[in-house]
Amino acid sequence: MSFLRRCHQRKCSAFMNSCVRQNCRSFTKIAALLESKAVGSRMTVQGWVKSKRKMKLVTFIDVSDGSSSEKLQIAVTNEVPPQIDVGASVKVDGIVQSFGKKGQIELLAESVELIGPCNLEDGYPFAPRKTYSMEYIRQKLLYRPRTNLFSSVLRLRSNAATAFRNHLNAEGFYEVNAPILTSSDCEGAGEVFSVKPNNQELLKQMAKEGQSQECAFFNSKVYLSVSGQMHLEAAVRGLSHVYTFGPTFRAENSKSRLHLAEFYMLEAEEILYNNSIETVISTIEKMLRNVTQCLLDSSMADLESVRNVQIQQKKSARDVVEYEADPLDVENIQKTFLSSSPYTIMTYREAMDILSSSKNKFKSMPKFEDGLTKEHELYLVKHNKNRPIFVIEWPVHLKAFYMKASKDGSMVEALDLLVPIVGELCGGSVRENDPQILSSRMKKLGVEETLSWYTDLRRFGNVSTGGFGLGFERYLQCLLNITNIKDVTPFPRWPHNCQM
Amino acid sequence: MSFLRRCHQRKCSAFMNSCVRQNCRSFTKIAALLESKAVGSRMTVQGWVKSKRKMKLVTFIDVSDGSSSEKLQIAVTNEVPPQIDVGASVKVDGIVQSFGKKGQIELLAESVELIGPCNLEDGYPFAPRKTYSMEYIRQKLLYRPRTNLFSSVLRLRSNAATAFRNHLNAEGFYEVNAPILTSSDCEGAGEVFSVKPNNQELLKQMAKEGQSQECAFFNSKVYLSVSGQMHLEAAVRGLSHVYTFGPTFRAENSKSRLHLAEFYMLEAEEILYNNSIETVISTIEKMLRNVTQCLLDSSMADLESVRNVQIQQKKSARDVVEYEADPLDVENIQKTFLSSSPYTIMTYREAMDILSSSKNKFKSMPKFEDGLTKEHELYLVKHNKNRPIFVIEWPVHLKAFYMKASKDGSMVEALDLLVPIVGELCGGSVRENDPQILSSRMKKLGVEETLSWYTDLRRFGNVSTGGFGLGFERYLQCLLNITNIKDVTPFPRWPHNCQM
Repeated sequence: MSFLRRCHQRKCSAFMNSCVRQNCRSFTKIAALLESKAVGSRMTVQGWVKSKRKMKLVTFIDVSDGSSSEKLQIAVTNEVPPQIDVGASVKVDGIVQSFGKKGQIELLAESVELIGPCNLEDGYPFAPRKTYSMEYIRQKLLYRPRTNLFSSVLRLRSNAATAFRNHLNAEGFYEVNAPILTSSDCEGAGEVFSVKPNNQELLKQMAKEGQSQECAFFNSKVYLSVSGQMHLEAAVRGLSHVYTFGPTFRAENSKSRLHLAEFYMLEAEEILYNNSIETVISTIEKMLRNVTQCLLDSSMADLESVRNVQIQQKKSARDVVEYEADPLDVENIQKTFLSSSPYTIMTYREAMDILSSSKNKFKSMPKFEDGLTKEHELYLVKHNKNRPIFVIEWPVHLKAFYMKASKDGSMVEALDLLVPIVGELCGGSVRENDPQILSSRMKKLGVEETLSWYTDLRRFGNVSTGGFGLGFERYLQCLLNITNIKDVTPFPRWPHNCQM
Repeated sequence: MSFLRRCHQRKCSAFMNSCVRQNCRSFTKIAALLESKAVGSRMTVQGWVKSKRKMKLVTFIDVSDGSSSEKLQIAVTNEVPPQIDVGASVKVDGIVQSFGKKGQIELLAESVELIGPCNLEDGYPFAPRKTYSMEYIRQKLLYRPRTNLFSSVLRLRSNAATAFRNHLNAEGFYEVNAPILTSSDCEGAGEVFSVKPNNQELLKQMAKEGQSQECAFFNSKVYLSVSGQMHLEAAVRGLSHVYTFGPTFRAENSKSRLHLAEFYMLEAEEILYNNSIETVISTIEKMLRNVTQCLLDSSMADLESVRNVQIQQKKSARDVVEYEADPLDVENIQKTFLSSSPYTIMTYREAMDILSSSKNKFKSMPKFEDGLTKEHELYLVKHNKNRPIFVIEWPVHLKAFYMKASKDGSMVEALDLLVPIVGELCGGSVRENDPQILSSRMKKLGVEETLSWYTDLRRFGNVSTGGFGLGFERYLQCLLNITNIKDVTPFPRWPHNCQM
C-alpha cells in the first residue's frame, strides 16, 4: 500500500483504529504473553533465539524480546532451518499452550520466520553455550545489550531510575533540570571538561574584538557540569524541595573501577528545619530503603538473572580476568539496605578512632588530616557488618567551601554515606547560608567574583537548605554486586575510551 | 546538641524515629495542609510571603512554599513587623481553621518568625503588586523560580517529564541513557560542540606521540551528542522498546525563539512490524494524548496560574516588549491534543499542494525542493484548525541518510509532527535496515568509516526499527502557549548567554 493511499484511508478513524489494532501493532510482548496465560489464543511474537534443542519429534527454541528476562519456549514440530539458531531474529505465529506440572506457558508454532540470521563465522562475538567474562562482553559494546546479563542490567537500571524519581516525586520534590553547560566551575577542585563549537568559521564570526575563541560562543568559558547543586540552590528558594538527575562529568585520568568521565548523579536539595543535617540523613535513608524495596518487589526476575550469570562466570573463573565480587545475593541486599535498625551514624573522629585502633594493615595509614581512602571506607563498612554508615562532622579542610561550618570554624556539617562494594555512595551537607561567612571563604579560594551569584541567592528571603548527591551507577554496583562501573553503564566513557 | 551526642542518641532507634517525626521534619507542606483540611490541628509551615493585607483587627499574609501554586492565608492578630513583607521567608506556627462559605482553609497564627528579609532597596528585582514582562523576569534568572509564573512552569515541567516517562514505561519501553559524550557526529549535518579537558597539563601527559591535544583524553575527537538515536538502535536490538530523555546540544548561532544550545529531547526507538511508519505515528499520538490528559488531570491549578499571569501581562501590555501569544486556554489544549478524531496524516506532496494553492503571502514561496519553513509549518497547522499534522513521505534529499528509502530511492519513510505555536514538535522515521543500501548512502556522505558500527548493528539478528525525537521544551511551549523556549527552561543557554 502506498503512503498516499494509506494516508487517505487513515482519515477514516474507524479504519485506522482497526488498522492500528490488527496490523501495525500485532506483536505481543513476551512478558505480556507469559503473564496473560491465555492458553488457546493465537499470538505473534518477535525476538532473538537464545537456545535451540532438537528432539525426535519437536524442536524447542527459547526466544527473548527483551521485554523481561524470561524467555518464551517455542515448540516447533516442522523442520527448523539451520539458520534459525542462537542470535538470529525470528517472528513466530502460534497458539499459547501450557506444559509441565506447574502449567508453564509455551507457544506451539504454526510458522517460524527468519528475520535476520546471525552467523558466528561472519564475526558475531558470542558463541552459544559459552560463558564470557564481563570484561570481554564490555569490549563488544555494540552487541552487549543482546546478552542475558547486560539486558537484565539495562532493565534494572531503567527500573531503578524510575524508582528514585517516583520516590522523590511522592515526597514532594520537583525535578528541576540543572544545566550541563555552565560558566561556573562548581567545586573549584574538580577537573572539568571545556566546551566550544567545533566550527572554526562560526567562532571567528562570533568572537568580539579582543575576545578569545574559547569565549566567542557564550561570552565566557563554558564547562561541562560537575554538579547541579548550586543551580538547585536557586530553584529550592522557590519550590522548597527539588532534585536533578542526569549526566555529570569529570576530566580525570583515572583507571579506577569506580570512576567514569560521564556518570549519572541524583542530586536533591531541600529546606531544612534548624539547620539540621538529620533531615538530609533521613531523606537519604528513607529513599534508599524505599527504592531498594521497590526493586525487590518489581525486578526479582532480573535480579535472579544477574545472579545466575554471575554464578556461571564464577564457575568458569579460569577464563575470567577481572571478576572479583561474589554473585549478587538478595539476602545481602536486604541486610544492607533494609534492616530494621536505622543506618549507623558516626562522626569522622569516631571513624578515625575505629581505623586507628584496628590491627588491619592499611596501604595508607589513617590520619585525621588526610581523610578516608577507598580502603578505609570499605574497612569501616565491613566493620559495621556491611551495613551503611553515615560519617558526619568533617574537618573543614577536607570538604567544599559551601558547607555549614561549626562556630569555631574547624568542622563542617557534611556527610558521606558508605556502603559495601563502592564505599562512598552519597555526599551531602548543610549549606552555609550566611552570606558574610560564605563570601569570606570564597575570597580565600578566589571564586568570590565568578560565583557572586551563589552568595546573592542568600540576600533575599533567605532560608537554610541542605542536600546530597548520589552516584547512580554506584548504587547499581552495590545492589548487583558488580565490581566495575563500566558494567552498569550502557555506553561508558573513560580515559582513552569513547566507543560509538 | 553537638553532632556527637546526637549521633550516640541516634543509635537508639526509637529515639531517632521520634526525633525524625517530631523535630527534624516538622514543617507541613502547604499543599498537604490545604488538602488535609485538618481544622483544629496545630501546624508549622515555612515559605515566602506573596502578599500582605492589613485590616483593623487582623493582618492577612499569603504564604507559598512552592509545593503547589496555591497560597496559604495566614491570619495574624498581633502586630506584624514591617520586615515581614513580600519576598521575605517566614516560619509560622498556628491552628488550621476554615473560613468563608466554601470552607476555605487558613492558618490562625500563634507565632510568625522572620527567617530572611527581602528589601527592595537592596536590589531585589520584583516589587509587590507589579507585573513584569517575561523577558524582564528571564533576565533575573537567579530569582526567577520565586515568581508565581515560573514556579508554576517548573512544576509543570517536572510533572510533564514524569508523565512522559510513566507513559513510556507503562507501554513497555525501557529508559537507556544514551551518552552525552560521543565520538560519532550523528546527523553529519548538525553544528556540534567539541569537548576536551580544561587542564593543559593533563592533556600533555595523556597525549600519545603524534596525537593532537584534542584527541589526547579519549583517543579521538569527542562531541556533545546531538541525538541519542544511533545508540538507541544498539539497545533496541536487545530490549525491543527503548527511550532516552535528556539534554541535547546544538552549536548554532541562532536567536530563534525555538532554539537553545542545550535542550531536552525525548527519543524512542522500537521494533516495527512490516517496516511500517504507522507504528511510530501511533506511538507518538497515543503518548501525546495520554501525557496531555494526565497533565490536565494532575496540574490544573498550575495551568490556571500560568493562564492568570498571562492575562495580567496581556492587560499591562504597554510594559511588555515580547509577549505575543494569547493566554493559555484549556479548551484549546483539549482541541489540539485530545480531539476524538485521530491526528491528521498527509504526505509532504499534499502539504505542498495546500501551501501552493493558498492565497497567503509567504515570506518564502513554498517549493517542493526546499522543504517547509516555520511559516509554512504554522500555516499548515492553522489550515488544519490548529490540530496536529503528521507530514510523511518526504523527498530523500531533505532528510537524514538513515531513513528507509522507497524502492526508487526518491522518497523516505519519515515524519514531522506539526503543532500550534512551535510548528515541528517531533521528527521520526523508519530506519534503513539493509546494510548494503545504508553503506552506499554513508559512502556518499563520507561517514562510512567513522560510523561503521552503525552498519554493523544490522549484521546479526537484524530487525526493522523506527523511532522519533520530541522536543520537550516545544511540547511545553505548545501546551502553555509560551512563545519563547527560554521561558520554559530553568537555565537557558543560547549564543552569548550562559548565566550561572
